[in-house]
Amino acid sequence: MNVHAKPAAVTTGPIAGSRKVYSSPEGRPDIAVPFREVDLHPSAGEPPVRLYDTSGPYTDPALPIDLEAGAPTVREGWIAARGFVPATPRAIRPEDNGHVAGDKLVPLCPAPRRLRAGGPGQPVTQLEFARAGIVTEEMIYVAHRENLGRARMLEGAEDRRADGEDFGAAIPAFVTPEFVRAEIAAGRAIIPANINHPELEPVIIGRNFLVKINANIGNSAVTSSAAEEVEKMVWAIRWGADTVMDLSTGRNIHNIRSWILRNAPVPIGTVPIYQALEKVGGDPDKLDWEVFKDTLIEQAEQGVDYFTIHAGVRLAYVPLTAKRVTGIVSRGGSIMARWCLAHHRESFLYERFDEICDIMQKYDVSFSLGDGLRPGSIADANDRAQFAELETLGELTKIAWNKGCQVMIEGPGHVPMHKIKVNMDKQLAECGEAPFYTLGPLTTDIAPGYDHITSAIGAAMIGWFGTAMLCYVTPKEHLGLPNRDDVKTGVITYRIAAHAADLAKGHPSAKLRDDAISRARFEFRWEDQFNLGLDPDTARQFHDETLPKEAHKVAHFCSMCGPKFCSMKITQDIRADAERMAGMQQMSETFRAKGSALYLPEAAEAKPQA
Amino acid sequence: MNVHAKPAAVTTGPIAGSRKVYSSPEGRPDIAVPFREVDLHPSAGEPPVRLYDTSGPYTDPALPIDLEAGAPTVREGWIAARGFVPATPRAIRPEDNGHVAGDKLVPLCPAPRRLRAGGPGQPVTQLEFARAGIVTEEMIYVAHRENLGRARMLEGAEDRRADGEDFGAAIPAFVTPEFVRAEIAAGRAIIPANINHPELEPVIIGRNFLVKINANIGNSAVTSSAAEEVEKMVWAIRWGADTVMDLSTGRNIHNIRSWILRNAPVPIGTVPIYQALEKVGGDPDKLDWEVFKDTLIEQAEQGVDYFTIHAGVRLAYVPLTAKRVTGIVSRGGSIMARWCLAHHRESFLYERFDEICDIMQKYDVSFSLGDGLRPGSIADANDRAQFAELETLGELTKIAWNKGCQVMIEGPGHVPMHKIKVNMDKQLAECGEAPFYTLGPLTTDIAPGYDHITSAIGAAMIGWFGTAMLCYVTPKEHLGLPNRDDVKTGVITYRIAAHAADLAKGHPSAKLRDDAISRARFEFRWEDQFNLGLDPDTARQFHDETLPKEAHKVAHFCSMCGPKFCSMKITQDIRADAERMAGMQQMSETFRAKGSALYLPEAAEAKPQA
Repeated sequence: MNVHAKPAAVTTGPIAGSRKVYSSPEGRPDIAVPFREVDLHPSAGEPPVRLYDTSGPYTDPALPIDLEAGAPTVREGWIAARGFVPATPRAIRPEDNGHVAGDKLVPLCPAPRRLRAGGPGQPVTQLEFARAGIVTEEMIYVAHRENLGRARMLEGAEDRRADGEDFGAAIPAFVTPEFVRAEIAAGRAIIPANINHPELEPVIIGRNFLVKINANIGNSAVTSSAAEEVEKMVWAIRWGADTVMDLSTGRNIHNIRSWILRNAPVPIGTVPIYQALEKVGGDPDKLDWEVFKDTLIEQAEQGVDYFTIHAGVRLAYVPLTAKRVTGIVSRGGSIMARWCLAHHRESFLYERFDEICDIMQKYDVSFSLGDGLRPGSIADANDRAQFAELETLGELTKIAWNKGCQVMIEGPGHVPMHKIKVNMDKQLAECGEAPFYTLGPLTTDIAPGYDHITSAIGAAMIGWFGTAMLCYVTPKEHLGLPNRDDVKTGVITYRIAAHAADLAKGHPSAKLRDDAISRARFEFRWEDQFNLGLDPDTARQFHDETLPKEAHKVAHFCSMCGPKFCSMKITQDIRADAERMAGMQQMSETFRAKGSALYLPEAAEAKPQA
Repeated sequence: MNVHAKPAAVTTGPIAGSRKVYSSPEGRPDIAVPFREVDLHPSAGEPPVRLYDTSGPYTDPALPIDLEAGAPTVREGWIAARGFVPATPRAIRPEDNGHVAGDKLVPLCPAPRRLRAGGPGQPVTQLEFARAGIVTEEMIYVAHRENLGRARMLEGAEDRRADGEDFGAAIPAFVTPEFVRAEIAAGRAIIPANINHPELEPVIIGRNFLVKINANIGNSAVTSSAAEEVEKMVWAIRWGADTVMDLSTGRNIHNIRSWILRNAPVPIGTVPIYQALEKVGGDPDKLDWEVFKDTLIEQAEQGVDYFTIHAGVRLAYVPLTAKRVTGIVSRGGSIMARWCLAHHRESFLYERFDEICDIMQKYDVSFSLGDGLRPGSIADANDRAQFAELETLGELTKIAWNKGCQVMIEGPGHVPMHKIKVNMDKQLAECGEAPFYTLGPLTTDIAPGYDHITSAIGAAMIGWFGTAMLCYVTPKEHLGLPNRDDVKTGVITYRIAAHAADLAKGHPSAKLRDDAISRARFEFRWEDQFNLGLDPDTARQFHDETLPKEAHKVAHFCSMCGPKFCSMKITQDIRADAERMAGMQQMSETFRAKGSALYLPEAAEAKPQA
């Protein structure tokens, strides 16, 4: 593959065993929310199981995929109706692509899009609309999406809600557009949705909604290419990434981003300081407000939905990291710390925060306030540097809100289990319940090669405690750049963590999928079990390694125990027996009420002498 | 490979980057406790890091490995000194090996061992010795092992202890043999150590010690062989399994077990009902006390260290499972439930529990009281069936203790996060703080192919809450039999869970390894980072996929960010700068005391307007 080729093919086609379906909220046939449906074996006697779907047009065989034309612009009509004045785009400069030229230059994605920007005093952001009492199409969309497309209260939803511990979250049994609006207005949730990203299928990030996950992609100075990055995005959302961060730092950064954005149905986040640093030749000391501002505008115009801004790394906090075991491990954090020390002055991100807000408001780019001083080891968890920055992020949150900007807050990092909850509680308290977006956290440092697992433990827990979005960690963390398999493993692992959190919080729709797959498992509907899982292909492959024959897919046993020792089989026999013994269950209850008169005599007689 | 061949080669040689060392407790040169030591790069200026080692003689190049002769009999002298009368072994019967004969019969392991059994009134078990105030060699051994061979109080151990939440556990800063004795006497810990297993390197299982993990191996009617099973044991302990359960159910079960036991430096557990069922042709209805008793004696004589006994599956509890989503999922549980229903009478395991205790006491086989009614799905977690059985297990624990037997209790299963802690609390309350030994628990049902991860989340949490040993789950759970790679993945995943729990509980030696690897990471000592990890081979391989050159092993950057954007590199530069600025840290503290006079003026001036 030519490293500088424009993107060619990406992975398309349905996820094994499921169909793409669209569902419209009541009274809004113009809004079509995508889901996947898994048809079950006829013996199940159950309707198809509907699943949340992040995979975009790529899993819909009915849609033509043309990367040069970009993904369907599902938001175009909604945005157009908001009356933004067409804007003149900033001209692309040689430094935007690292001064590459000729056949080394990746071409810009040619998909034609109209640039929009909010005018003075004009409401642009979802937060501004929410505060004005306006329910946007994005809000209607995400409400329907969170409900899995159901038009009414889930049957038994109240019961299911009760079966959870939500640590003060307020998860409704049914999500209404008005609930979404109110949560956004309160700052408790965001819909990252740049008005220049019409291809976006909106998603909501907040403690009272399903826990979301982010996958990072990005080339680096050492390796990777444009084609790979677009495919990585498509691949990551196929397996369940709700948002994707493009952390590219190499050449062609502007043009690669254009391919990603024009083809991304999910919110795209970036860390603008990375590109700004490229523009000044990689020397942090040479960064300044002008080059950073220019980069913000450049990326906002392209349609980036959220920016990580490390404005909480203040000069006074840098010395707090000097005695750490692992110092500063955030790239953005260390760049800004370096800058502060070199100039011995306050961070320009902090000083210019008002101006940053003004730019982000104009396009509805959401803040992801970066935790530049997050701990990089168990030893450094919850230290003064980390919490000092968090307090500043709380201060900045309120400023951004006043400017009409949507905000989420990034969190650690490496944290042992017993120190996780205090992170969540402190974040909620300091940042006014703005959504928390954490990396893991990794619960031990000793397993390089397995940090998707060390961090899934922490991610599931902090998701349960209230984190709204979990940033994935791949098996390559600390060791190298993730490849295709690593991205998939990271995404599936984080879907597990997010779902475990949803279950524990008592999200009303979460347990439906567990129950469906458990029934399939118990009834030996192997295909249903594969298809209802997070990764049907791997489940099928693992099963087939020991029992490849098609006949085994309906066999009432599996390779673990063989036909004679199958506990599920024995249990089914028990149940059949029990049913034959008429009213056995009722009898049992009667006996237990009487002190188990039938069952206990033998037992009492034989009871071992204590 | 001939399926019926006797074991040939097993994996030997040191784990990459570490040396086998032995250390003796003060005043006991006759006791040599194995550890691994990792030598660090000279630039570290640190002594070797000593690690807990479960791998047995197979990682010691100085020891000849001869499977026919068996592993070194480290306990021989200790046991011999206890004055047991030599016993006459039960004769091997055709049904012990499933009636195989001729070239289909796996030969017995020829390693010569003397059969021992306790006589009437003679103390045999570690519990009996502990109660009599006698500190056994096994107790001295495990104390030294838990301390990582340190002969004195760990420096700073008290501080480290304070940095944890132990939920009522009482973990000492330094483990003395007397502490071990007292814990065993109280029933809070066990050393599974059959007096016919002289090859055992003793290990302690209890809430106030390091969290242990178990790996399951075992052939089945469908697949697997003797050679594979012995190698699986060696392979599992190489990566960190503290105990191994042999869950074989096929033919040659007796003779395969002889090879495993004679070569096992770790406690071996079994589920005797599996073999008993084989002896009656696989029909649970034909089971009876005599065949079960015969099997107990057969396996106890071979040296099995702990038996899973599903004596808590009582007749009256079976109907409680009728409305479950996944019924009974424990093999042993379903076999006994089937038996109870078929005969409509109380379980013979429950009725004969006194006699079972007498057999187990005679050889010091520890009880692992099985949770035959554990939930097999999120839907069934913490239901009445599960807790009714747990209450019975508590009752049986006290009976076994009165008989002098060591006891641990098995636990679930599938449990969502918010229902995990109540399992631990109820187990402690019902079972008098006997060690808990849990399978996972799996925190969601929706990820077949990834259940090592769904369960590692639950395992880490319940380990933190107080579970003493975690039974691993491999990626093949629910789908097929684990192969070599799956066993390794399962073991490493569970070492992560156990270590995360140790850290959170505040175990005094746990954080030493995290800190050592974090320093290595921060100082770009790549080889040290690999070697201090749980799986040096995989870490190295992952790193080399992107940066294979040897030179990169000392490079001050990695492939994630490349040389220009490396946050660790930038942080080191910051630190160097900071050191040049004499007394910067102290200045900072002074300034903060004064309200950050130096740093804040600029910031205050530039503070964005709130």
